[in-house]
Amino acid sequence: MAQINFNYDALSGNYLFAEIARKISAYRAAHPDAKIIRLGIGDVTLPLAPAVVAAMHEAVDELSRAASFHGYGPERGYDFLAEAILQGEYRSRGVDLDLDEIFISDGSKCDVGNIQEIFAPESVVAVADPVYPVYLDSNVMAGRAGTKQSDGHYSSIVYLPCTAENNFAPSLPSRKADLIYLCSPNNPTGEVLSVEELTKWVAYARENDAVILYDSAYSSYIQDEKVPHSIYEIPGAKEVAVEFKSFSKTAGFTGVRCAFTVVPKALERSGRKLNDLWNRRQCTKFNGASYIVQRGAAAVYSPAGREETQGQIAYYMENARIIRTGLEEAGFTCYGGRNAPYIWWRLPGKIPSRVFFEKLLEECQVVGTPGVGFGPCGEGYLRLTAFGEREQTREAIGRIQKKFA
Amino acid sequence: MAQINFNYDALSGNYLFAEIARKISAYRAAHPDAKIIRLGIGDVTLPLAPAVVAAMHEAVDELSRAASFHGYGPERGYDFLAEAILQGEYRSRGVDLDLDEIFISDGSKCDVGNIQEIFAPESVVAVADPVYPVYLDSNVMAGRAGTKQSDGHYSSIVYLPCTAENNFAPSLPSRKADLIYLCSPNNPTGEVLSVEELTKWVAYARENDAVILYDSAYSSYIQDEKVPHSIYEIPGAKEVAVEFKSFSKTAGFTGVRCAFTVVPKALERSGRKLNDLWNRRQCTKFNGASYIVQRGAAAVYSPAGREETQGQIAYYMENARIIRTGLEEAGFTCYGGRNAPYIWWRLPGKIPSRVFFEKLLEECQVVGTPGVGFGPCGEGYLRLTAFGEREQTREAIGRIQKKFA
Repeated sequence: MAQINFNYDALSGNYLFAEIARKISAYRAAHPDAKIIRLGIGDVTLPLAPAVVAAMHEAVDELSRAASFHGYGPERGYDFLAEAILQGEYRSRGVDLDLDEIFISDGSKCDVGNIQEIFAPESVVAVADPVYPVYLDSNVMAGRAGTKQSDGHYSSIVYLPCTAENNFAPSLPSRKADLIYLCSPNNPTGEVLSVEELTKWVAYARENDAVILYDSAYSSYIQDEKVPHSIYEIPGAKEVAVEFKSFSKTAGFTGVRCAFTVVPKALERSGRKLNDLWNRRQCTKFNGASYIVQRGAAAVYSPAGREETQGQIAYYMENARIIRTGLEEAGFTCYGGRNAPYIWWRLPGKIPSRVFFEKLLEECQVVGTPGVGFGPCGEGYLRLTAFGEREQTREAIGRIQKKFA
Repeated sequence: MAQINFNYDALSGNYLFAEIARKISAYRAAHPDAKIIRLGIGDVTLPLAPAVVAAMHEAVDELSRAASFHGYGPERGYDFLAEAILQGEYRSRGVDLDLDEIFISDGSKCDVGNIQEIFAPESVVAVADPVYPVYLDSNVMAGRAGTKQSDGHYSSIVYLPCTAENNFAPSLPSRKADLIYLCSPNNPTGEVLSVEELTKWVAYARENDAVILYDSAYSSYIQDEKVPHSIYEIPGAKEVAVEFKSFSKTAGFTGVRCAFTVVPKALERSGRKLNDLWNRRQCTKFNGASYIVQRGAAAVYSPAGREETQGQIAYYMENARIIRTGLEEAGFTCYGGRNAPYIWWRLPGKIPSRVFFEKLLEECQVVGTPGVGFGPCGEGYLRLTAFGEREQTREAIGRIQKKFA
């Protein structure tokens, strides 16, 4: 008699973003004429850069001719892209990596969700609170979370509160953790970890043989040159950290799908290289990202691609400034938005964030993401994203100022 | 202290196809002038169909303009593709499914590898022997296999021998199994399961509350109209079976990446719908297949796309005929190749298949896949595939006839 994986029963009711999508659909159905502005889910709106478009057309043409056709590619991705990543993301910042330390995939969500498979089931997991739900949910599914308690926390998870009081930089855990998920620039708070903060975490991981799972999907949004773009800028990090980066926000690839994960060969646990384990996992359960997509991603690092995608990022960061200053003008406090496309809006009074989410939808037809959806410490906040169109973003902030100032 | 998933230690040394690729590389390095013909890995060689190429160009153009840009799509895939699949694969064969029973992904290898996650860790797994390695390896990684024994079998796995004696149609297991992987048209044997055989398995699964994981990635190669293209052609299968299909071989998408998995809502275990569990898994750890790729896949079902891809399949099936009849002319026995692009070559004498693999590479510069790589019952066989170019295929068979006839 087949039985299910009962760990799924311990998951929260719905995957956060799917739940929000349903609520918006329901509102739209009830108010077909409403001009809804979506600053909730972190999805880009600008079209792909011309250099990326040209590269993908060329790749499609290659596949249309027998002489240049490509079938199965390497599970870990093509060297042309890994080489471009090495140069564009790492060597240019003084970080030296080997080609076979880079694993190209169809998305960071997949990699971040799957990475826990290569660790022991009894690993103690630490996550920030608030946190991107995938870190937590993938470990709930794997049975590492324990039971959900009345405060919204799982009994076996080590939580690292990130609040205004600690400048959204988590303190070291009081209980020993084996796998530590860190995210900088942070989703959802929009804040970043400094060299000093990251150095503290690398030291902790080295001392405790922990592994840091470092989600740096938004590093291209960093404006302050003192903020690290990669955890490997911290000496000693290669022995303790896996790093995730994505083309989703760097180059508008949310619908195109490409990302990569770095697993240094110096990173060993239980006497095995994690690079070998992840390679085996990917060779067994993944078949490489689309050739067309990998060609498009490589074009991001061409001179034209770089200039065009940096223009997109500048556009979104101007949106972030508009949101941040607009909320401040209206008398609100908010965080993030300086080195990240997310603004973490401190809600007025004691209003629960899910209630405020619905209020904002109903009164302003503006969609944000309720902070509590990212964890109990997210209560009292709403996440807004800078990925909207300029006029829509201005309009949304104007509506908010008019209703709530 | 972080520890690894020690189940990885129980895996066989290397993922089969990666191992073969390395052996070929080594041979090529030692013999740079050798004209190697690869009939080993199941990778297509014909370029993409013009209808698919046109659709992907159009999709790239859509993403190049703000008004038609697409960011994140539904995790389960776009309705335009699910609708085309429903009509093209199922309704046309009298099988009725709902749109939300279809989950589009970037490849069957991923889905087939990931599906076991939604089942209990203690599930008893049955696989054919020989078998596509992903079914087994993904369950070894999950700790369901037990220990590897001297005969090459894992202690906790139920094996279903497929040999010439049973016409490569496995008998029902003597020990109760919860999760049963079946593959038809079969990789590696190239044989198919008849209506009678499939009816037997559906009845077994219904009786024992087992779940059949039905890999039908090669169904478009079926020539004999009496052979089922889908397990749902068998009455009662919706309550017991998940089905996997792929565009990899149907339309040459091995480097493009698109597939789909059907999880009927009627399929419940432990009182939960597997459709809900798989949806939750995909929403948490997957972000949808590339928009460009989904547009290309939908074009496979257009009148032009259908005609063009059926032409490709006919081309490969003529290769299959050439291989099959060529081997028979040389005095060998072989199976498959009538409803599948694989030929299962019975090797002469008692020669181990890994030895014959190297002999064939060295003496004929032809690459096959050693049968033992698919399981102990594959010993004594070599898998050849029909995906080569016509002249290369003829040339390979000519060399084999010359050396071994």
